Amino acid sequence: MSGALYVIGLGPGPACWLTPEAADRLARVSDVYGYAPYLARLEPRPGLARHASDNRVEIERAQAALAAAAAGRSVAVVSGGDPGVFAMAAAVLEAIESGPSEWRALDVEVLPGVSAMQAAAARLGAPLGNDFCAISLSDNLKPWALIERRLIAACAGDFAIALYNPASAARPQQIHDAFRVLRDHRAGAAPVAFARAVGREDERIAVTTLAQADPSLADMSTLVIVGASTTRLLARQAGPPLLLTPRRYEAPA
Amino acid sequence: MSGALYVIGLGPGPACWLTPEAADRLARVSDVYGYAPYLARLEPRPGLARHASDNRVEIERAQAALAAAAAGRSVAVVSGGDPGVFAMAAAVLEAIESGPSEWRALDVEVLPGVSAMQAAAARLGAPLGNDFCAISLSDNLKPWALIERRLIAACAGDFAIALYNPASAARPQQIHDAFRVLRDHRAGAAPVAFARAVGREDERIAVTTLAQADPSLADMSTLVIVGASTTRLLARQAGPPLLLTPRRYEAPA
Repeated sequence: MSGALYVIGLGPGPACWLTPEAADRLARVSDVYGYAPYLARLEPRPGLARHASDNRVEIERAQAALAAAAAGRSVAVVSGGDPGVFAMAAAVLEAIESGPSEWRALDVEVLPGVSAMQAAAARLGAPLGNDFCAISLSDNLKPWALIERRLIAACAGDFAIALYNPASAARPQQIHDAFRVLRDHRAGAAPVAFARAVGREDERIAVTTLAQADPSLADMSTLVIVGASTTRLLARQAGPPLLLTPRRYEAPA
Repeated sequence: MSGALYVIGLGPGPACWLTPEAADRLARVSDVYGYAPYLARLEPRPGLARHASDNRVEIERAQAALAAAAAGRSVAVVSGGDPGVFAMAAAVLEAIESGPSEWRALDVEVLPGVSAMQAAAARLGAPLGNDFCAISLSDNLKPWALIERRLIAACAGDFAIALYNPASAARPQQIHDAFRVLRDHRAGAAPVAFARAVGREDERIAVTTLAQADPSLADMSTLVIVGASTTRLLARQAGPPLLLTPRRYEAPA
């Protein structure tokens, strides 16, 4: 029994952001498990069995992949972006923790990828150029009170903020609630960007301010970045302004 | 005048973590600017002029690169990791902001890379599997009071914390000061990892707790991760324990 499990980040979309490590590993595994739209990015090849699953069944997907690895298969579990950022690495470890003890003997490796947050930041300039935090607005697995507490703490620390999972069909309200909290705790002039599907065909970027932002611009494919008090716009002669959170912090207090 | 400037992330070290986008662009520019150890990672080739500079002269490096681009060259500025995370993207935008207006007409593009934080997280399992923040402990450009405020806010929000630039020869004390603050605001049982030079030959990982950690394990090449209240260890039959910050948050309050 020489099975192994690789938790692989595919990056935000285009092949130019897939690491050689991930591409090389995907070319050699026997089985790949993932949310169907991520599997659709992979070239079919003989000897590769694909196991597509729905969104929001991460634990079941992880369990199926671990069972296959325990049966001696060489298995990949894929995530968009980075598997360590609101993605499959945690789900796989949770499944091992609560699973049969033999799963703890498996060779498990996490292969990092470019995250949606980094792709968005690159497109926008340097919005995360100083201290920042990443918060998922999904309350499927954590209480909204915690999310609110974290938004308030992020403002207390004057972090730039990347908001993951800002809205879905089942949760259209949370990004509105989050913006209400943010507007109570951060100046309205803070730059805000809605970066949708960065690197894909339907990429769309909108830059505004916290006071003027329309939260309904955010959907499942959007990464929202809220600037810190020092974040400012850099106007250019061609193209939209860039966001800059400078390295220097001039203490007002 | 058709100069362009690319701000390129080389990833944490090994070529297997360099994106195809970055590799492709580096194969086509005429000039590359960077801190000498990062330039040393690039294969020499005819037609590529390398401009090595020292650490801590980011603005001067950015200005030189922008001047070359304005003179019609195709220029890369390289960072280790991701250029958007405590690296050259912000410095380049700052230089444009305070530079001649013609620099605002240049084609400037940021190419994301795998960050040190992600490489460390991948090696450790899933320590950043829920909300997290990234804080640089360098007070070269920001007051220590702000860093302390951000550490306290990160604890108030119960974020997992990635600490960049924990220590250098000139700043051996800050990681000790930071741990003192963290120990006042977070339970001592929180898992802590020192991930040094991940992906490179001298990689070294140490897993401990906030109460027991020896801050002097951190140096310039170390990324320190401090777990949240929910972060726990996952023991395995082979190898060191993994860190897991689960997706689910059981609210104590």
